[in-house]
This record gives sequence, C-alpha cells and structure tokens, in this order.
Amino acid sequence: MIERYSRSPMRELWTEEAKYERWFQVEMTVVDALERLGEIPPVAAKEIRKEAKLNPERIAEIEEKIGHDLLSFVRQLEESVGPSGRYIHKGLTSYDVVDTALSMAMRDALNIIATELKTLSSTVKKRALEHKNTLMIGRTHGMQAEPITFGLMLLIWHAELERDLERIESAREVISVGKISGSVGTYANVDPKIEEAVCKKLGLKAASVSNQILQRDRHAQVLTTLAIVAGTLEKMAINIRHLHRSEVSEVREGKTHGSSSMPHKQNPSTSETIAGLVRIVRVNSLAALENMPVWNEQDLSRSSVERIIIPDSFLALHYMIVKMNEVIENLHVNVERMRENVELSRGAVYSQAILLTLIDKGMPRAEAHDTIRANSVESEKSRKHLKELLAQEKKIKPYLNAEELEELFDVKYHLKNLEKIFKRFSKST
Amino acid sequence: MIERYSRSPMRELWTEEAKYERWFQVEMTVVDALERLGEIPPVAAKEIRKEAKLNPERIAEIEEKIGHDLLSFVRQLEESVGPSGRYIHKGLTSYDVVDTALSMAMRDALNIIATELKTLSSTVKKRALEHKNTLMIGRTHGMQAEPITFGLMLLIWHAELERDLERIESAREVISVGKISGSVGTYANVDPKIEEAVCKKLGLKAASVSNQILQRDRHAQVLTTLAIVAGTLEKMAINIRHLHRSEVSEVREGKTHGSSSMPHKQNPSTSETIAGLVRIVRVNSLAALENMPVWNEQDLSRSSVERIIIPDSFLALHYMIVKMNEVIENLHVNVERMRENVELSRGAVYSQAILLTLIDKGMPRAEAHDTIRANSVESEKSRKHLKELLAQEKKIKPYLNAEELEELFDVKYHLKNLEKIFKRFSKST
Amino acid sequence: MIERYSRSPMRELWTEEAKYERWFQVEMTVVDALERLGEIPPVAAKEIRKEAKLNPERIAEIEEKIGHDLLSFVRQLEESVGPSGRYIHKGLTSYDVVDTALSMAMRDALNIIATELKTLSSTVKKRALEHKNTLMIGRTHGMQAEPITFGLMLLIWHAELERDLERIESAREVISVGKISGSVGTYANVDPKIEEAVCKKLGLKAASVSNQILQRDRHAQVLTTLAIVAGTLEKMAINIRHLHRSEVSEVREGKTHGSSSMPHKQNPSTSETIAGLVRIVRVNSLAALENMPVWNEQDLSRSSVERIIIPDSFLALHYMIVKMNEVIENLHVNVERMRENVELSRGAVYSQAILLTLIDKGMPRAEAHDTIRANSVESEKSRKHLKELLAQEKKIKPYLNAEELEELFDVKYHLKNLEKIFKRFSKST
Amino acid sequence: MIERYSRSPMRELWTEEAKYERWFQVEMTVVDALERLGEIPPVAAKEIRKEAKLNPERIAEIEEKIGHDLLSFVRQLEESVGPSGRYIHKGLTSYDVVDTALSMAMRDALNIIATELKTLSSTVKKRALEHKNTLMIGRTHGMQAEPITFGLMLLIWHAELERDLERIESAREVISVGKISGSVGTYANVDPKIEEAVCKKLGLKAASVSNQILQRDRHAQVLTTLAIVAGTLEKMAINIRHLHRSEVSEVREGKTHGSSSMPHKQNPSTSETIAGLVRIVRVNSLAALENMPVWNEQDLSRSSVERIIIPDSFLALHYMIVKMNEVIENLHVNVERMRENVELSRGAVYSQAILLTLIDKGMPRAEAHDTIRANSVESEKSRKHLKELLAQEKKIKPYLNAEELEELFDVKYHLKNLEKIFKRFSKST
Repeated sequence: MIERYSRSPMRELWTEEAKYERWFQVEMTVVDALERLGEIPPVAAKEIRKEAKLNPERIAEIEEKIGHDLLSFVRQLEESVGPSGRYIHKGLTSYDVVDTALSMAMRDALNIIATELKTLSSTVKKRALEHKNTLMIGRTHGMQAEPITFGLMLLIWHAELERDLERIESAREVISVGKISGSVGTYANVDPKIEEAVCKKLGLKAASVSNQILQRDRHAQVLTTLAIVAGTLEKMAINIRHLHRSEVSEVREGKTHGSSSMPHKQNPSTSETIAGLVRIVRVNSLAALENMPVWNEQDLSRSSVERIIIPDSFLALHYMIVKMNEVIENLHVNVERMRENVELSRGAVYSQAILLTLIDKGMPRAEAHDTIRANSVESEKSRKHLKELLAQEKKIKPYLNAEELEELFDVKYHLKNLEKIFKRFSKST
Repeated sequence: MIERYSRSPMRELWTEEAKYERWFQVEMTVVDALERLGEIPPVAAKEIRKEAKLNPERIAEIEEKIGHDLLSFVRQLEESVGPSGRYIHKGLTSYDVVDTALSMAMRDALNIIATELKTLSSTVKKRALEHKNTLMIGRTHGMQAEPITFGLMLLIWHAELERDLERIESAREVISVGKISGSVGTYANVDPKIEEAVCKKLGLKAASVSNQILQRDRHAQVLTTLAIVAGTLEKMAINIRHLHRSEVSEVREGKTHGSSSMPHKQNPSTSETIAGLVRIVRVNSLAALENMPVWNEQDLSRSSVERIIIPDSFLALHYMIVKMNEVIENLHVNVERMRENVELSRGAVYSQAILLTLIDKGMPRAEAHDTIRANSVESEKSRKHLKELLAQEKKIKPYLNAEELEELFDVKYHLKNLEKIFKRFSKST
Repeated sequence: MIERYSRSPMRELWTEEAKYERWFQVEMTVVDALERLGEIPPVAAKEIRKEAKLNPERIAEIEEKIGHDLLSFVRQLEESVGPSGRYIHKGLTSYDVVDTALSMAMRDALNIIATELKTLSSTVKKRALEHKNTLMIGRTHGMQAEPITFGLMLLIWHAELERDLERIESAREVISVGKISGSVGTYANVDPKIEEAVCKKLGLKAASVSNQILQRDRHAQVLTTLAIVAGTLEKMAINIRHLHRSEVSEVREGKTHGSSSMPHKQNPSTSETIAGLVRIVRVNSLAALENMPVWNEQDLSRSSVERIIIPDSFLALHYMIVKMNEVIENLHVNVERMRENVELSRGAVYSQAILLTLIDKGMPRAEAHDTIRANSVESEKSRKHLKELLAQEKKIKPYLNAEELEELFDVKYHLKNLEKIFKRFSKST
Repeated sequence: MIERYSRSPMRELWTEEAKYERWFQVEMTVVDALERLGEIPPVAAKEIRKEAKLNPERIAEIEEKIGHDLLSFVRQLEESVGPSGRYIHKGLTSYDVVDTALSMAMRDALNIIATELKTLSSTVKKRALEHKNTLMIGRTHGMQAEPITFGLMLLIWHAELERDLERIESAREVISVGKISGSVGTYANVDPKIEEAVCKKLGLKAASVSNQILQRDRHAQVLTTLAIVAGTLEKMAINIRHLHRSEVSEVREGKTHGSSSMPHKQNPSTSETIAGLVRIVRVNSLAALENMPVWNEQDLSRSSVERIIIPDSFLALHYMIVKMNEVIENLHVNVERMRENVELSRGAVYSQAILLTLIDKGMPRAEAHDTIRANSVESEKSRKHLKELLAQEKKIKPYLNAEELEELFDVKYHLKNLEKIFKRFSKST
C-alpha cells in the first residue's frame, strides 16, 4: 500500500484488518447457511456466532508457523470458539473464502471510485457550463489552430468521464460474483445451495461455474477499466500542464507548490503527480492480464501479484480522482490571457475560414491555399496582422470585399454551433 | 501487418485498399449529405458520384510529394472528377474522414471477432457436453488434487468465452461512433446535420462532442478488450499444453507438428503459437492506453502507433481464435489415460473427502489431517494404495468401516453435483 | 513497500528513515565542501556538524503544512542547528540532494542484489556439478525429446546468472553518479568543485552534465536490468514447477506448502510466488522507461512513479533471489524418477540417433524418417519398446544389426560430450 | 514489417530473402566444417558448394505442405543439390541454424543502429557547440525557472546518446553468440568443434552452454536496450514539440507538415511520429522479457512473438534515429525568440540569485523568500519588471544597492560556469 497516495475511505478498505473482517463475514454467512441446511447442529452454530472473535495478532503468530494466511485465520477462529469451532469453514477450500471476499472488496472499491468519479464529472460539467463562452485558441500538434472555448474542452472531458462511469459499472457487475464450490469446483464437500445462499446474502451472484477460483478475466476487466479511467485523468492532467506553462498561462492550479530555491515558481504539481501515477495503474493492468492463464484448476503465481496490484491500483486511482476534482474545482482560469492568446497569431488562426470562402467564391483551391500561406508567413515575419495583409492582397480582392473579410476574422463564425453541442448535455448527469 | 498470422476475412479489412475504400465511402456519403443541405450544387454532386474513382498508385505518387495520406487521397479524388471535385471534402478536416473510417473498420473487425468467438464458444460447449462425464484429475499448483471431468474444465472456458462475447459487444458499441465536426470540433465549416446524416448512413452514432478526433478512451477499450479475449485463449492454450505433455498425455492436438530431427515428436505447436501471440495483443493494449492523453485538440503521436497496433492486434487475435477452434474441434482426448492418471496417486486424491468424513464422525481435525498425511507419505514411498493403508490404520477404524472407506474412494462422491452445474448452461448459446 | 515480500537488508534500505539518513549525509558532505571552499564560515560549519540532528516526526509536521518533503527536511535540519543552519543546503536545489541520495540507495541496493545473486549462482553451480551425470529426459514443446542430465539444465541457469551479474555490474556503474549543479544544471549558485568533492566523498562520479536532475536513462537501465534478472528467476521457477508436477515428480521443493483441505498436497509454492513476482518487476521496468521523457529541465511526473517502483522492484527481486536460493539449495531431486521418465517413451527418445545413423548408412532420409515414425506410433499404441519393434523391422535390417541397434539406445551416445561442456566452467566463479 | 516506418539498410536486413541468405550461410559454413572433420565426403561437400541454390518460391511451396519453415528450407536446398544434399544440416537441429542466423541479424542490426546513433550524437554535439551561448530560459514543471543556453540542453542529449552507444555495444556483444549443439544442447549428433569453427567463421562466439536454443536473456537485453535508446529519442522529440508550440516558438522543424484545412499551420510532425513510435519499441521490450521463461529445453511460444517484435523494433528505432538526425540537423532555432522568452517573466527568473544574495548578506531566509515572492506576484499583476519593483522595496534596500541589484539581473551570473561544462566534452566523439 502506497501510504503517500492513499485516501479515506479507500485506504481502510485494503488494510489487513479489513481483509480479515471480510473473511469473517464470509465464514459466518457460510455457518448460517450450513445450519439452515442441517449441516451444522444449531447449538454449534449458535455458539460460533456468539464466540467467534477475530484476533489478528494470533493469526500472525500461527501464520509465522504454517505460512498460509487463510488457514491461520481459520485456526484462530476455531480457537476462539472451542470445540464447536470445527464446523467453521466446513467443506470449504481456502479460495472459497479468499476469492469471494476479494470480490466484495473490489465491488466496494469500485463503488467508491464511482462516487468520486461522479463528483468529478459533475465538477467538470459545472465548470464547462461556466466557461461555455470563454474564448480560447484550439491547438493541434501543439500549434494554434482555430478558436474554441474552454468550456468545450471541459465538455469533452465530461463526456469521457461519463463513459468511464459506464465502464466502472460494467466492471462492478462482472466482479460482483462469489464462489463456494470447493477445491476444484465440483461441490464435492459443499452443497451448491450454500454457494447460492451465501452469495445472495453478501450481495454477490454465484459464479455459473468455477474451479478452485474465480476466473481471472473478471479481475483483468476491472484493472484494465481502472487503467482507462486513469488514462482519462492523464489526458486532463497533461492538458492542464500544457495550459499552465509560463508562455501559455491560461490556467493555474489553485494550490500550486512553490520551489525551495526559486521563489517565483508556481508549479502544477498535482497535475504532474496525477500524470505520473497513471503509469502505475496502467502497467498494473498489464500484470492483471498476465494473471489470466492460471495453470489447471489453480496456481499460486497470480496471488503475490494481486496482493500488490489490486490495492495499489485502487488506491492510486482513488487518489488521482479526488485530487483531480480539487484541481478542477479550484482551477484559476485566466480568461483574459486566453483571449490574448487567440490574437497571438495575428489572425493566422482564421485561415481556414478564409480559404473555404475563397474556394466557395470560385478561387481555385491551390491558389487560395498558397496565397493565404504566403501572407501567413509574411505576417509572422513582419508582425503585421493577417487581415491587414490580405486587405491589400490583389489576388483576393476579386473575391472578398473589406466587410466580408472582417466577418471571416470574427470568432462568431467559429462558435456559431456551440449552443447546439452543449444542448446535447442538458439532460445528463 | 503480420502476413504469417493473418486470415481472411480479417486480412482484407486492413489492407491499404480497404482503407481507401472506407475513406471513399465516407467522402461520398458526405457529398450526398452536403447536396441535400444545399451546400453542393446538384450537378456537381451528380458528377462526383459518376466520376470519382480511387487510384491508389496516383495517391502514392502524390503522398511521395506532400507526405500526408488523407490529403493525397482527396487530391487524387478531385483529379478524377475535375472541377466539380473541389466540393469533395468540403468543410472537413482530415480526421473527420480518417477517424470515422477507422471506427467503421474497428466495428467490422469486432463483428468478425464476435462471429469466430461464437463459433469457438459453441465448439467448446459441444465438447464440454461430449466430455461431461470424462473423468479427469483436477490439479492445483501443478499437483494432483481431486477428480473433475474434462467437460467441467471445458465448461469453465465456455463460460469465460461467453463473457468475452459480452465484452466484444460493449467494445463494438463504444467504437461505433463517427465525428464530422471539423478541425477543432466546433463545426465551424460543416453543419452538425452533416455529421448526423453521414454517421447514420454509415451505421454509426455521431459522437456527442469531439475535438479534431474521437477521444482515445474508445480505442483503448477495444484494445484492452482484445487483450482480455487473448488472455482467455492463452489460458486454454497453456492448459492444453500442460495436458499434452508426454508424462500427462491426456490430450493431443489433431494436427501436431513433427520435428526435423526427432521423428517421434508430436508437438502442440498451434497452442504454443497462440500462447505466444497473446503477448503481442497484450502489450499492444498498453500502447493503446498510452495513446489516450492526446495534447490539446489533437496530436500526431498516437497515429503511428495506431497504424501498427490496431491491425496487428485484430489480425493476431483473429488468427488465434480461428486456430483455437481448430484445436478444440480436433482435439484427441485420451479418455483412458485421463482415467489412469486419476489412479496415479494411489488414492491420495481422495484425501479431503476422508478428512471431512473423519471430522464429521468426531475425530479431531488435526489428528485426522496428520493421520491421512502420514499415510499419504507412506503410500508414496511404498507404492501401496492409500485405501489399503487406511484400512489397516488403527486410528481410523473407530470411525470408518470398510464399506464406508470404499465409498470415499469412489469418484461418484466427487461428481455428484456435475449435472447441476451443466444444467445452468442448458439454455445458453 | 511490500512488507510480505521484503527481506533484510534490502528492507532497511528503503525505509523513510534510511532516506533521511542519506539526505543528511549528502547535506553534511556539502557543508564540508562549502567550508573548504570558503563558502561557509568554519564556525558555522563546525556548529552544523555538532548540532544537526534528524527528527522525522518534525519533518512530517512541516511537510503536512508545506507539502514538499526535501524542503521540510532542510527546514527541520536548520531548526536543529539554529542561525548557522541557514548555511545548510546553500546554493543547492532539492534534486541535488534527492537525486544524489537516490543514486546512493540504488547503488547499495544493486550491491545487495549482486551479493545474493552470486550466492545463488554458486548454489546452482554446486548442484549442477552434483547432478552432472544425473540422467534426465530433455523436453521440447513439453514433449520428451532426448536425454540430458539435470546438471546440464542447472549449468544453463548458472551461465545465465553469471551474465546477469555482469548486467548488474553495468547498471551499478551507470547509476553510481551524483549531481550538484543547481536548479537547471548551470551551477549558477554552486561551484562545480562542490559537486566533484561531494560525489567523490560519497563514492559516486559527478554527472558530466545535468539539468535539474540526473537523466532517467540511468534509472531505466537499472530497472530493465532488474527485470531481466527477474526473467532468469522466472525461467528457473517455471521449470521447477514443471518438474514438480505430480505426473513428472522429478524434483520437489524442500519446504512445500500443504493444502488446508487436501492433506496429501505438496505444492511448489515458493516457485509459484517467484513466478508471480516477476510480473511486478517486469511491468515496473516499463514504467521506468516511461519516466525517461522528462519535460524540459525537470518535471514531477516521474517522481510519484519512482517512489513506488524503485523500492518495490528491488524488494521483490531481492526476495525472489533469496527464496530461489533456498529452493535450489533444498531441492529434492528424485534421481530414480528421472531415470524412469527417460524410459517412459519406450525408446522413442532415441529416434534421432537412429535416424541419423540410418541416413549415414545410406538409407534415404525420408524413408528412414517415415519408418521410425511409424514404429514410434506403433510403440505407443502397443506399449511395446521401440527397440523391440525396430529389431523386427525388415526395412532396417539391411542397415543395422542387433548390436548396432543396442548401442543407439544407449544414453552414453547422448552424453558423450557432457564433460567438455562442464569443463568450460571449471575456472569460473 | 512496418513498411511506412522502414528505411534502408535496416529494411533489407529483415526481409524473408535476407533470412534465407543467413540460413544458407550458416548451413554452408557447417558443411565446410563437417568436411574438415571428415564427416562429409569431400566430393559431396564440393558438390553442395557448387549446386546449392536458394529458391524462395519452392521453399514456400514445401512450407505450405509441412508447415515448418526451416525444414522446408533444408529440403529445398537438398533438392537443388541432389543426392549429396543429404549431408546438408547433418546432425543439426533447426534452431542451430535459426538461432545462430538470428544472432547474425541482430548483431548486424545493432551495427546499423550504432552507426546512425553516432551520426545523431555528432549532429547533436555540433549543434550544441553552435548554440553554446544561445540564451534560453530553463523550465521546470513547465514553468520558467532560470536561464540556460540551448547548447546546454543539446549537450545533455549528446551525453545521453553517448551512454546509449555504450549500451548498444554491450547488447551487440551479448547477442554475438551462436549455438550448434543439437536438439537439447548435448552435441549428441554434432561435434562441439563444429560449433566453434562455424561460430568463429560467422563472427560469433560459441555459447558456453545451450539447450535447443540460445537463452532469451540475450534477446531481452537487446530489446530493452532498444527501448532505452527509444526513450532518449522520445525525450528529445517531446522537448522539441514543447519548444515548437506556437506560444513558445523557439525552434521549428526544418520540414514541417502543413494542414489540409488550415493553411497557416506548421506542425512538428516528425517529432510527433518519433514520440509515438517509442511506444511500439517500449512495449515490444516487455514482450521480449516475457519470452525469457522458455519451458524446459525449448518451447515455441516465443517464436511467433520474435517474428514480430524483433524486426519491428529494429525498423522503428532505425527510422526514429534517422528522422531525428534530420530534425536536429535542420532545426530552425529562433535565437531572438529564445532571448525574448527569457525576458517574458519580467525578471522573475532571476529570483533565486537575489534570494541567495539576500541571505548571504544577512537577511533571514523566510523574510527574503516572502519578499521576493510578494514582488513576483505584484510584477505579474502590474506587468512591471521585478527589478523595478525590488529597487523600490524598502525591505531590500538595507542589503542591496542599485548596482548590485543590476548585476543579479544579468544572465552572466547564470552562465559563468558554462565553459567548464562544455570543456568536459572537448575530447569525446
């Protein structure tokens, strides 16, 4: 567990204690079901319910000796109960408990992720609406392209976060499954009814078929889903960092971190941290995919990997979402600078509109393209505005008068369909 | 494109020609839509429809000069039409065409994958039913555990393949989206109605919002989904290889490949190839995740990556599925050897049933566990059957008579719930 | 840090305390160097050396407020000294300390790895010599091929471990580098002589050029090297697991772990755990590669990643090596079973020798190949020994008499060059 | 093979034809060696040398039938020779040829890489010297930090490329190894002298020990090395893209690619492509690491993977280096804009020098830090130069007079050690 990048309530879900609690819950639910099926004497079941107590220190002691965590847990439970304790874990294999409990944890973790992701998506949408008309230059390949609004950029993120929520929901469904089918999945020593009853009680579905474990395609789907969500945050973080650069200065993180040596610095540290942590979540998803080809009915190689990657990915992603929500919520948007940057190119960013109009008016495409490009180059050299240059360009005069030219250098031309785009999101969330 | 691992019809989908065909289809659909909206004179539209012809050689020539594939394609189309050609691509940006066409290709590719995957899933189910009662030893950690049937192992694969089919369906939905929103997604030079009409005609949804491109979470979902499906095949392949080993000899690939130097060899070559190719599909999915954080409204860094990983992953996975279906369809199952292998342990694989019964009859768990273990070790040393040894074990006699002991060494004990498991799949597929 | 997979002394190297100790060591060495250069008054330097004390709790308190770990550390040191404390960290940027100290840690960690790896390599060699003549069947594609010895298999591992040691040595050299060149690498506020003196004292080279940090190709080389070493262990682990399988039973881990439910089980748990942990080290190396393209003179995105992957990879690999050494040291080798398995094929594994001899004696290759193959198939069906069948094969009689045939079924034929191979390793290690 | 990203002479190295040529070369060298050892009659050897001819079409025909590429190749060679052809491949296993030839190809490919990398490193150094004194603002976290020169940035790249060259050299050595030791590495049917003679002739070392194949740690080292080199190029590409952005405009690719729709655009397309292709090389290195744990003496799963990743990684990296050299060679450096950008912050980038001087003169660190920060914020708001503001700051006057303040805003302060850094590189390359 990465303490530095852990936040409540995700942190509490992945402690050793929480794991034991879940195992305890599974075992106790099994005891109840076994009793109802007549497999445990009511007296014994009652005693178990009354006396069974978790004792993590004692579990650790036993594990020191026998090197098997679930088995140590069961023995400690038995000890706490006395003779009736022998009915605990009856007919079960370790992974009936371990895998069912892991599904519970992953389901709960996905619920936490979903909650925070909804908050983030709402925050992004709120700020998108706030900046629906905040003029900004769109950039492709790092180069100024054509005007957009900052709200449009945010709306794209919001739409992606909504897709991520659907992915989380699918992942939650696929992992909300338990199995209590014994050592190799044959229910040799445990009735299928136990599985059904226990899973239902724990809010899970019973796997339609299993061997010693749940199949790892489920876990792989969860972890690749986390990696996709992390990718969305990475995109947001990297683009905030771009807009944050000194030469762009269009946004600033609310809580920038200074420098020890350079008092003037205000760094987008949170976005940088988020852009880094995605690498953890992403490569962990690869390890989850590698965990799929279990040998025969079970092998242990995926176990060590899952102990590390599942908590780490959930913790890191949770941290990233919470932090990104803070970033977006508190993001200083420099509306004035955004407007200035649109004008930085001295009109070059309006070139497409002019090109298309010239073509429409009958100028051959190649000639139109070359004329505009030549004037763009000249504008950059001379630092004169493109509009000014084009107004004096003989080749263009036959097609465009001054007024028409003026209109083509108006951002309204570019933003005329903005309302239509935003309307598509008027009902959602 | 990996020729060696390409199969029809997937191969044809990813040729240069097929790409141009899709681009052509998008451009022509746009022409129709523009005409309906009055943006192109009917005469010109009619001429375009009549005259526009693809000429890949000419495209290559132009690209040699200008180094931009879509632009070269558009110019060649224009050339083929003459003056009216200037209405082609009107108001569009390259990626309106490229990304919409890529969605079409990926959707079609997913359809091909789904078809083959259904076939495979059915084949697996068919053979699962065939071997529902084919006794086999279950193995955990590579060690013999308890009896299962070969049908049960296959049924687990079938169930996973069915989940994979759902994943493919989700991926297909998420990628069946086009965008014709111009250079930075503002529809500055193209009416949103065009996008809607064209996407509908092409069997896609219009993206609810876009910048220059479709957002890459969609493509990442497709490629991670392919990686999960590949993981399922990897599990199947690796387990076939395990069962195929000389010392196990429970299955044999129908078409084994011999060795150049060792005439007796019959290798599970197809399963080995499948187990290798998964690595390609898996690491490609990581590159797809890395493609997500596009800079601003578009950057080109994901483009080179996608040219490689998207075709390669689809081709490799398609090959893997087709080949795995051949393997399963033609798999020689050595039923006799499977039965022999169950007996290989001289009864040790029945130890759990005995343990549980002894506990149930009142023997303390630890004593029962130790007694059985001691006799298992002795059985291995002396090569005597565990049943024989236990029949003479004094500690056990108070709890179990000869008849009861006999029953515990009966596979029926282990397979009593098999029918119930299979019944759950009686309706599906 | 993964407590479960941590072992001394690697664990102690990556604690928060050890990190502070290293930072302390760097700062104090800088103080000494600054004093010698006349940049700090001797009185102040003396006072710092006397009074400066680490107080992790106080650092944590400060960090809580300012969110910058190195800065908090420096402030706490200053506090502990009083006014003269202001000379601590003089002219330095945070990463002068952080990166130099990280190099020290990674160098020390590589030394630990090298020590354990040497032990493992020796153990493997020792057992290789012990089993130089332990007959075993070689297997390709999981199928029995031709005889080898178990010692030969081990010798291959030994040779690879020796290559790994060279890789570790190269990595150690490339990371044994420090930098004290200020905020952007210009030595604006710190003399290059300080860097040289401090690095020398700390057992590092000074980087020939740097910006705010050491370039991350160095760290990437270390982590990919760890991943290659992990891959060697993975090969060993997976092959032990193969030889451990019930049906093969050629080796057994000294400390097998039993099963909670199946008293007869003896699993190769340690090898399984090792085979799993490699996935962590491997995917972490990918994240290290992704850390290379730092933006401009420094960005923070690699920082969070390194906090996780560097300790985790070192800890996991150290654990893996130590455990693998235990496995190899204590591995039960079932010499008798190995011999039995060679005979399992009823002579088929000698087919190549027969083929080549037949060809040599003038039989056309295709006829020889087909004849042997047909008899191999028959041998498998009838469970008769191939030698017996070939002795009666009319096509073969013209070329081979009974005595010659006998010789071709002798393992001596296969092992005649064994001594020569082992001799190549007589001097090494 | 990725045609689009292939360049001579790397392209020719990985064709099917080149592969056959290498196989041919190995087989012919083996024939010579066998003859010298008396294993082939001189007449037959002579005939083989005279008659043996490659016929790729015929190989393809045979492979169609038997599905084994090396075997088909051997049969075609035999056919071309007639009866004496049966001595070709005598005593060899397929991988004696395949793996030895693959080593030759990888060695040659690394030589090509090394050549291009040297060129690139020289070009970078040349331009570093050219821009040794070209003032530029250093940036950390995307924010302006302190002055550097563009030459310094380039020098850091040069130093890293030199390290990469050493890595390539190590990788070349580790892969320059062949093996001709037969089916399972025992030299059962081929004398070790053959291996030694053949490897020597082919410019390789003989592996000290092998099974059917060369161990894959060698190939993993090559591919992770390629990934590190790719990471260096990624850093260069990403930073060129940063400096290329419209708002920064400090460099421009010599051959920018325009936009189909926006005539004013000049995109850093080559750097973008390079920044993308690194993902291919990087994830391929992961697959190479996964190829290491071969089962027993050989398995086929790594084969399909290597057919794809080895050529693709070499081709892509070669393309990247060649293209990057073009980029660096032709990079337009906007010296004037670089100088302007240093002044963009109105003096804030000199804050550290002022801070340290104030502390040195006796001002408490915290007060100095806060005073400068407050004035930096004010400078940004008011758009007044920091020097101007500090000159009027009462708190500062006691420590600094006007002249001293002037000096601290002089870049000379920052660049005083530049010559010393460059001198370290005066002898190299």
